[in-house]
Formats: sequence, structure tokens, C-alpha cells
Amino acid sequence: MMTGVYSYQKIVGKGRSLIHMTQRSGSYYAVIFSSQRTEGDKGYGVTADEIEELAKQQPGFIGVEGVRDASGAGITVSYWESLEAIAAWKQNPAHRLAQSKGKEVWYERYQVRVCKVEREYSF
Amino acid sequence: MMTGVYSYQKIVGKGRSLIHMTQRSGSYYAVIFSSQRTEGDKGYGVTADEIEELAKQQPGFIGVEGVRDASGAGITVSYWESLEAIAAWKQNPAHRLAQSKGKEVWYERYQVRVCKVEREYSF
Repeated sequence: MMTGVYSYQKIVGKGRSLIHMTQRSGSYYAVIFSSQRTEGDKGYGVTADEIEELAKQQPGFIGVEGVRDASGAGITVSYWESLEAIAAWKQNPAHRLAQSKGKEVWYERYQVRVCKVEREYSF
Repeated sequence: MMTGVYSYQKIVGKGRSLIHMTQRSGSYYAVIFSSQRTEGDKGYGVTADEIEELAKQQPGFIGVEGVRDASGAGITVSYWESLEAIAAWKQNPAHRLAQSKGKEVWYERYQVRVCKVEREYSF
């Protein structure tokens, strides 16, 4: 959900879109999710779309950008207004279920880093 | 250059590799580089490899992970020991030349976010 704090522009059409946010005021946070998919879809695509839609409805959600290549390597970065918003999303029941399925079925491995954005610039 | 603070493991072989770092102590920083390539290589591949090699020789460099998909959308995250190390790398002459070429030739657009890693977990 956009809050009026940021403007938001999609860059890329294929798969999930890179976003361009112009910060206007206030601090915000990034969650960097680096992952390696297992082979085959196994229901991943549908759930990933559902989870992204749910994330967008979470309080404090700002935006998400993600890229995955043909080898199954992916980096998704979601942006949030606060650490509390990130913690609440981590505990969301549907998200927890997806996290569990992710460990069992969809990912060979993944790494999550929660970060405070200190500054940004764009071209 | 690895410093002994982190262990380092490559995850993925295609293109640049996702890294897995296990933090042992100390704070560190992430630079999230989201970009959209223009069409065609135009010397990008060779320079990108050279710049990555140079980054690895910079003081305070910890690691880098990156993914680019077939549409040219990419996210690269580099990890650094300090904001000073990031600022020094931004001013590196070869890197500055590549930044300039990037704006002129290689990228439709990009966005850079400098972040402090607050916490991490992995599977």
C-alpha cells in the first residue's frame, strides 16, 4: 500500500517489476531476499503471486522489486516503513505457511537481510 | 577481499553468484543496485567483470551477489564493512568511468540504495 511518502514507478515488465521510488521524507527499510529455487514450479508461481498481493495489503508496505534468472537464482527486495511492519508481515499466517513450504519444497536455500536504507540516488 | 569476519559460500553458478555469508560479528552495509540494461552488450560484460574484480580488491569489500533476467532487469547487492568503504569505492577512478559509461550506454535507468544491515537469517 502506498502511503503518499513515496512515488512509485514500474521499470520492467517481465516477471516481477523493478520499482523506482523517489523518497520524499522519512526513513524506511529494505528486506533483501536472496534465494535459489529448486527445479520445477511445484505450485510456486501461484503462491508467490498470492503472497505478493498479501504483502501489498500489509500496513507499512512500500514496494517490492525482484529478479530471477533462468538458473533459478533470485533476489527480491521489499521496502517497508518500519521494522515493526516487517516483523508483522513475517508473522502473517499465509506468509508463514509459504515460508514453511519454501523451506520444504521451493528453495534449495535462501538468505534474508533486514536493512535500514541510509541514502539513495538514481539515474 | 574477505576479512575473516564472514564466511562465504557461492550458491549459484550462472552469471554472477549469489553468496551466502554467515555473520560472525560487527555491523556491515549493503548497496542495492537495481537496474534495467539497454539492449545489446556494447562492451558491458567485459567491463562488469573488470569492475567486480576491482571491487573485490577494495578495502572493506565483503561480497557481492547479483541476478539479471532475460529482459535485462537486474539486482546486484554488494556488502561492505563501512559507509567509508562504500564512499571510497564510489570514487574509484575506474569505477567512476564505468558509472559514466553506464549512464550513457548500458543502463536505461538504475537506482542505488545504501543500507545498514540490521539482522539476517538464512535457510
